Amino acid sequence: MRLTSLVVKSLTDRVKAYSGAANERNWDAFAKLLADGVVYEGLQTRERVRGRSNYLRFNIEGFPGDWHLRVIRIVGEGRFAASWIDFTNADGTTPPGLCFFEVNDEGEIARITDFWPDPYELPKQREHLVERY
Amino acid sequence: MRLTSLVVKSLTDRVKAYSGAANERNWDAFAKLLADGVVYEGLQTRERVRGRSNYLRFNIEGFPGDWHLRVIRIVGEGRFAASWIDFTNADGTTPPGLCFFEVNDEGEIARITDFWPDPYELPKQREHLVERY
Repeated sequence: MRLTSLVVKSLTDRVKAYSGAANERNWDAFAKLLADGVVYEGLQTRERVRGRSNYLRFNIEGFPGDWHLRVIRIVGEGRFAASWIDFTNADGTTPPGLCFFEVNDEGEIARITDFWPDPYELPKQREHLVERY
Repeated sequence: MRLTSLVVKSLTDRVKAYSGAANERNWDAFAKLLADGVVYEGLQTRERVRGRSNYLRFNIEGFPGDWHLRVIRIVGEGRFAASWIDFTNADGTTPPGLCFFEVNDEGEIARITDFWPDPYELPKQREHLVERY
């Protein structure tokens, strides 16, 4: 166990592999990156999933459709990482997805907090301070 | 210049200082962390601000009220960082704020992409796959 943990990939590589496995629906590879007791939280909906098998089922059944994802940025430091992806829906929209990760001593992903920020109207109070793009 | 850049704080410390300076309205300290040509983008509203002085004005004038922020997580790696904060409004609500940063060769913050994810309704398709919290 100890030896294995010494040769694991960097956290950034693990999060890249996590995103890649999800994109390819390679659920075996995806599962191998997760801690047995992984906890997922979607803070905006206050939804939580506990445990690897529940989290696999959540990903496989909870997000139907021909979606794809593309990594914009992954940042990893120590036991923590953050990712920013484009999530491409079947309808061609590409909402951003943001995720904060925590790994355990074995380098397995143990905690995931997920954010899906929707577009909103620019507040009037700062209209004169910005350009639009 | 070279010598200075060798002794600058870590990127994580810089992002901590950036959040701390904003929280304290210490705009001098805030300005010193920014590149002259800093570019800020709010992706959800498609708003953009270019340049240190415009970005200062944007922060000072664009967000009135007695807000505070609390760092939940900062992750930095190489030239990139991500932060997750609680933004405490005067009304007591604490929406999350997420930010991705990029620094230049001098360690100054050169690019900021900001996200403010709002709460949304849990989709029916995954109601049976999660617990609420």
